[in-house]
Formats: sequence, structure tokens, C-alpha cells
Amino acid sequence: MSAYRELEARFARLSAVGQTAMHLHWDQSVMMPPGGAEARGEQLAALSAIRHDLLTADVTENLIRDAEIQGGLDEWQQANLGEMKRRWTAATAVSGDLVAALARAATACETKWRDARAERDFSSVRPLLQTVLDLVIESAEARAGKLNLSPYDALMEKYSPGITSEKIDVVFGDLGAFLPDFLGRVMEKQAAEPAPLIPEGPFPAARQRELGEDMMRRMGFDFEAGRLDESLHPFSSGTHGDHRITTKYNDDDFVFGLMGVLHETGHALYEKGLPADWRRQPVGESLGMDIHESQSLIIEMQACRSPEFLDFAAPLMRAAFGGGGAAWDPENLVRLYTRVKPGFIRVDADEVTYPAHVILRYELERALIGGDLTLADLPGAWNDGMKRLLGILPPDDGLGVLQDIHWYDGAFGYFPSYTLGAIGAAQLFDAAKQADADVLPAIGRGDFGPLYAWLGENVHGLGRRYPSEELLTRATGRPLDAEIFKSHLRVRYLDA
Amino acid sequence: MSAYRELEARFARLSAVGQTAMHLHWDQSVMMPPGGAEARGEQLAALSAIRHDLLTADVTENLIRDAEIQGGLDEWQQANLGEMKRRWTAATAVSGDLVAALARAATACETKWRDARAERDFSSVRPLLQTVLDLVIESAEARAGKLNLSPYDALMEKYSPGITSEKIDVVFGDLGAFLPDFLGRVMEKQAAEPAPLIPEGPFPAARQRELGEDMMRRMGFDFEAGRLDESLHPFSSGTHGDHRITTKYNDDDFVFGLMGVLHETGHALYEKGLPADWRRQPVGESLGMDIHESQSLIIEMQACRSPEFLDFAAPLMRAAFGGGGAAWDPENLVRLYTRVKPGFIRVDADEVTYPAHVILRYELERALIGGDLTLADLPGAWNDGMKRLLGILPPDDGLGVLQDIHWYDGAFGYFPSYTLGAIGAAQLFDAAKQADADVLPAIGRGDFGPLYAWLGENVHGLGRRYPSEELLTRATGRPLDAEIFKSHLRVRYLDA
Repeated sequence: MSAYRELEARFARLSAVGQTAMHLHWDQSVMMPPGGAEARGEQLAALSAIRHDLLTADVTENLIRDAEIQGGLDEWQQANLGEMKRRWTAATAVSGDLVAALARAATACETKWRDARAERDFSSVRPLLQTVLDLVIESAEARAGKLNLSPYDALMEKYSPGITSEKIDVVFGDLGAFLPDFLGRVMEKQAAEPAPLIPEGPFPAARQRELGEDMMRRMGFDFEAGRLDESLHPFSSGTHGDHRITTKYNDDDFVFGLMGVLHETGHALYEKGLPADWRRQPVGESLGMDIHESQSLIIEMQACRSPEFLDFAAPLMRAAFGGGGAAWDPENLVRLYTRVKPGFIRVDADEVTYPAHVILRYELERALIGGDLTLADLPGAWNDGMKRLLGILPPDDGLGVLQDIHWYDGAFGYFPSYTLGAIGAAQLFDAAKQADADVLPAIGRGDFGPLYAWLGENVHGLGRRYPSEELLTRATGRPLDAEIFKSHLRVRYLDA
Repeated sequence: MSAYRELEARFARLSAVGQTAMHLHWDQSVMMPPGGAEARGEQLAALSAIRHDLLTADVTENLIRDAEIQGGLDEWQQANLGEMKRRWTAATAVSGDLVAALARAATACETKWRDARAERDFSSVRPLLQTVLDLVIESAEARAGKLNLSPYDALMEKYSPGITSEKIDVVFGDLGAFLPDFLGRVMEKQAAEPAPLIPEGPFPAARQRELGEDMMRRMGFDFEAGRLDESLHPFSSGTHGDHRITTKYNDDDFVFGLMGVLHETGHALYEKGLPADWRRQPVGESLGMDIHESQSLIIEMQACRSPEFLDFAAPLMRAAFGGGGAAWDPENLVRLYTRVKPGFIRVDADEVTYPAHVILRYELERALIGGDLTLADLPGAWNDGMKRLLGILPPDDGLGVLQDIHWYDGAFGYFPSYTLGAIGAAQLFDAAKQADADVLPAIGRGDFGPLYAWLGENVHGLGRRYPSEELLTRATGRPLDAEIFKSHLRVRYLDA
């Protein structure tokens, strides 16, 4: 067997172990009783150690070197070998002791953070966050040396490989300059119009579920090859032939649950469309969180808040809950679903203000990793940024620096992917509409076929064959930038 | 670190991987959509290969040898080391190629068997079963050499370690001589009485579930540390803090679903009671299928078909389904739940005729493994045995030799554990009642506390500290034999 084929067998096993770990996380969030936490933690730790051993074993390094020398690979195989090497490099960059120390520190910090957030007291979690931050910086510097990146970029590489802060500075700079003035104009326009009506409930969970399943089927989700369940926070998971998403139903408001379903279905359909010939190989997996988020937002934000889709969906929504009156008119629902209002909490933010939340976090975490900001100054810097970007001042740290789990859990470099995803979604949806004039009209008939035909060919079916920005350039004819996203916002929110 | 401590760490990892595989099986039976079968198969194959590699690595052998030389272990540690060695010996006895060939042959044969059973055509599956049998014999002989057992005993060792066919010949011989005459007398007695009334439904699944959950709670099942779900065949699974059982609800008959719940809860409470200090170690696991089955049957057969329990449960059952009339009287339910009738199908059999089904299979599979019976003669031998043991002749092989999945799936040596479990249950329940006179009266009040206190001390909390027969002797004062089981049958069915 050639060295390359041996690597394929090795990474197929790694893939199966990775899928198993992902399934254990799904079960933990959806099915597991509380008493199972200890055993589940032990199972996940064992799988993590097994993956690390398989990936960092000497034989992996030797096989990669031999495969590079032997050559004779086609382009997909070369891309696959490149992905293998990237993973091996990243895994060997950081010592097992450091990984374990960071995991322990993050668990302790995250636990304390839950109390600190409830008590709105940043100072109580600050010492633990300092430990996490110190270890993250140590890990970032170790990765940076091996990956030939800056420390911050070496962290971001885990979530959005191929994207550097040099690139993000340009894109976020553009967007950060655009948003404050644009937001003011949107707010002014919406204030001059009558407020949208709110459909009245109750919205029984069983009905919400049926409506969600109906929408999922229209989008192409196959319930013989997937599930819809409930969890505290919506997420998507699963493997080929078994795609699982979750949402959360609120009896007083069906929009949150339905948007969760649509968003997660976008994630699931990306996974479903990955290249079948490369299952269980690194090159056959989805790209980073930036592209993944573009696939959920293309559904939730681009397609499903469009007047075309809401025209189609309004009668189905009304029928699902036996509703009546003007609140269920498509025009009202469009206004309701595109309502803009600056708020303190990122996860509740609308499409226009969301990027401001992300830009703030990006600026702050870069400064923290670079040593230009101390944790003592973090809450103040947070509040200054909110004032500058959104014009509002959090009344306490619970509505400010304590709101997101990410940093307390050790995840630095993750936040940019949310807004990179929003930008990518705008660019891809625009390109799809240009490539096939029926994409949007079909969505207006509840038919997502043309959109998914285009996405399948230009995104899903390519796996990790190209880095995310090259994929975007090939698909849309232009590299990642904020222009199309800005145009989309202007058209949707200012009719301009 | 001592060699023994290193082994503990290694076997803790093996335990976590084993728990993970068990969880994947649970999910496959309870949650997984059909499309997930391929990926799930790959995940399970990877985990199986990882376990095999961990167990058979040279380092495992060296550590076992070193730990034996170093000594200094207490009795539990010695028992633990013995279990480790037993597993290592069994795993290294059979080559990976043979294991894989048997797995492939069993999958092919089991798939064909589903059609053959539907068509009641043994000859169509016979060639594939021959391949399975040949590989099973090869595997049995390889294990026999390493374990110093006969080939058949080496197969049975997988399910009921420590039990030999020499022992079973005595016990089953005794029971086989007792049953035909006893069965005739029971049939005669029951024929002379009026037939029991059948409670009328419908029995909505949701009510059956609530009733089952109520009974589970009374037995000590904690829903913060476990789940009750549905699957095609009831089973129990899970790990410490997360015990999961399933049942199946039949709208026309609540007894099947409820007895499934009680039976599987018996299994789950055994797992729950295992020694907490030895979690993740071989000595902390449950004993073989024989003892496991005794723990389900002590609940389903000994406790829950007793007049004492049915006196208590009848009003709860009646209330659950809004039933009325004499069919719900405890005396009627006792007669209904102890009705005896020879039938062709093992899984539908009552407590009296069940052992005959097992004895027949034991005789036949021993002859097959020993080369004293060919597959060509198997259906005839089956039918002759049914006539001899139960006095009935299957009209076709669908109701005969094709009914059970076991042999077609490669499982030879498993069947005896069912009846060893029934015998053990009788012995243990009798000993518990003698040790604490309140065991049965408490069950008559819906309180399983005294029974589980005794079982916890004498069975559950001992893990694999002693081989199953030694455990039984310590707990009951006598080795495994059929005497107590026969007395139990005489008392329950002939008031004698």
C-alpha cells in the first residue's frame, strides 16, 4: 500500500472517532439525563486522547513525508494530503500537557462564569479568565511558530482556516465605517412607519414542530436521513445519512423556534451536500465556521426573510396556528422580521446591528491576545465600544462583557466567523440569483431546488478542495469583501 | 507508576471506549434514522478495532506479566488483574482476520435469515449458516486452546464465564426430567379452572408509559440518572449515572410493555448497584449474562407475578386505563399472569415452558459445535425435540428452527444464560426472603427497598469480585442447581 493510502485508512479511523465524539455531544445536549455527565466526560476525554495519539504518532509524520516524496496524486488527493498535514502540524504544535491544562482551566472558568454572569460581577471570574488567557496566549504562540502565522491568526485558524486578521481588518473596517450612519437612517425610516403587528399566540410546541418539519422538507431535508429535536440552544450535528438539528420552542413566540429550524437546516444541508466520494477523509469535510455560518445565514437571513418567501410562508404559518387578522399579512411579517433595534445582547441582535457586536469582540480579543489590553480594562473597553458602535451603554457587565461563553471557555478567534458568514451568505446568494434567475422566484413558491442546485455545485460538493476565500472567489467571481452585504442591507432596509 | 496502575489506566480507557460503543448501539435502536446505518457501522468498526489494538498491544501483555511479578495487590485488585488477563487472553486467542471474517459472514447470514424466516425456508439460508458455523467452530477451537476449555465451553465463556457444560448438563438434565410431567399436571389443573378474564383496552401508549415510569420509580429507578424509551425489542443499556431501558407498547395489550419495563429495570438496577469504587475497571462490571438475566427475572418473574405484588399493582393498573370489572381483580390477574401453555415461540413462552425451549437449543448447538449434528439434519432434530419436550410439532421452520436470530448472527453458547438466569433468580429471591422476612410483604406495599438492600449487598455491589457460581453460593448458601426453581414452580403452579 502506498504511504498516501495508508494515510487515508488512518484518517478514516480518525474521522469515525471524530463523528463518534460529535454524536456524544449531541446526545449530551438532547437526550442524556444529568446523572450521565461524569461518564460522558470520561468517554469524551478517552476519544480525545485516542484522536490525539492517532494524529501525532510518529507513523503519521513518516507517512506524510513519504506520501509527499512518492507523489503521483491527483488534485483532490493533493488537497487531502494538504489537509492531513495541516491537522498533524496543528496537533503537534501544542504539547498534550498544555492542551490538558487549558481544558481544565476553561472548565473551571466557565463554571465560575455562570455564577459571575448571574451576579453581574466580572471581577469574581477575572482571575480564572486570566489563567485561561495566559494559557491561550501560550498555545497561540506555539501554534503561530509552527503555522507561520501571528498568534491571533493561529487561534482563528482553528475556526476559519485561511482567513487572516489582515483580511478581516479591511472587511470589518469597511463595515464598521458603514454601519453607524446606516443604522441611524434605518432607525429613522422605521420610526416613521407604523410599528409592525405581533401575531398573537399561543403557539403550541407540537404545531411549531410540524411547521418546522414542513419547511425542512421543502428545503430538501430528508427525515429518513436526519432528525429534528429540542435543546437549550439550537445546533446542528450528525454525519452522512444522519443529519440532526435542534431548536427550542417558545410558547409565546414561534419565530425564534422557526428561525432556529431554518438556520440549522442550512447547516445540515451543507453537510448533506459534501462530496460522497470523499466521505471520512479530511478533504471531504465542510470548510471552517465562516463558510458553515454562510450556509445557515443564506437560509435564515437571505432567503427566509425575503418578501418572496414570506409571501409564500405567511398562509402556512397562519394555518399552523389558526391565526387571523392583519398581523399575519405577508407585508406585516416582512416588516416584523426586518425590524432593527440596537440592543446589548449579540444573540438577540438583528441582521444590521449583529456585525457591530462581532467587530467589538474582534477588536477586544485581538488586543487581549496581543497584550494591548488587560482584563482589568476589558469591561470599560467593552462599554466604550458599545457606545461607539451602537450608541448604547450596558447598565452592567451581565449585559456587557459577561454575556458570551466563548472567552471564558477558552474560545478566542471564533467571533469573526459569524460576520464572515453573513458577508459570505450575501455574496453567495447574490451570485446564485445571477447564475439562475429562478432562484428567488422558486423560493417564493417554497421550492429551494434551484438555490441548492447552485450551492451544491459551487460550495457543498467541493468539500475542502479549496480554501474558503478561493472557494468564494470561484463561486462568486470576487474575493470576500463587504460590498455585496452592504448592498443587500441598503436594498432590504432602505429600499435603496 | 506500578505496572498494575498502568493497567488500570489502560483498562479505564478501554472501558470508556466500550461504553461509547454501547451508547452507539442504543442510539441505533432508539434514535437513529435509517440513513445513518452506514456511518454508524463505520464508527462501531473503528471503535472495535481501537479496543482490539489497545487490548492486544504488546505493552498490555508485558504489564500483566510485570503486575503479576510485582504483586502487592489486595483481593479486589487481584480479581481485577485476573479479569484483565482473562480479556487479554480471549482477545489474543483469535486472529483479527478470523474475527473480521466471522463478522462479515454473520452479517450476510443474518440478512438472508430475515428473508428465510419470512418465507419459512431454512434451505435458503443453510449455506450461509454453514459458513458461519465453520468460522464459529474455528474460533471456538482457537479460544479453547488458550482458555483450557472445550470448544463449546469456550464459546459459552463469552456470555456466562465460569459456567461449563459439565455443570449445565446436570442442571438442565434435572430440569428436563422434571418438566414434562410437571407441565402436564399444571395444564390439567388450569384446564379444570375457569379461564382468566382478559382486561379490555384500549391501552394508550402514553398511559402505559406513565404506569411503567411509576413502577420504575417504586423499584428505585432515578430518572435524573436514566431514561425510558421505545424500541422494536426491549433492552437495557447505559453507564453509571445514565441507565437507559426501552420497551415496546402494544395498544391492545399492556402486559407486554409493562413486563418489558419491569424486566429491563431489573437489568438497569443491577448496573446501578455496581461498586462505585471500581467504575471503569473490569472487576467493577456486571457478571455474565446468566447473572444479569437473574436480575431481570427476579423482578419480572419472582417479584412481579407474585400475588403480593399484583394485589398492590392491580388498582394502579386499573386506574391507569380507567378499567372496570372482574378482569381487574388481583386474583384474576394472578391467574392471567401465570397461565401456562406450550407454544412454538421461545420469546412468547411462559415461565414453565421457557426452559424447554432453552434446553432444546442447548442440546442442538452443542451437537452442532461438536460435529455430532449437521445443518441438514437440524430442522428435523428441532422438531423431534419440540415433540419430546413440549409435546407439540412446529408446522413449519418459521415457527421452528428459523425463529431466533442468535445462530444466524453467530451467537452460539448464549442460550443457556436465559435459563441459568431463571434458576439463579429463584435461588436469590428465596435467599433474600429468608434473610429478611419483610422482602415479600414490602413488595406487596410497592416497596422494593428490602429486596434491593439485600441484592445490593450480595450481588450488585460485588461486581466481578467472584465468579458467578461462587457469588451465588456465597449469597444463597448453595451452588447453582434447579431445586429452588423447581420448588418455586411447584408452589406457584400446583400450590404444592
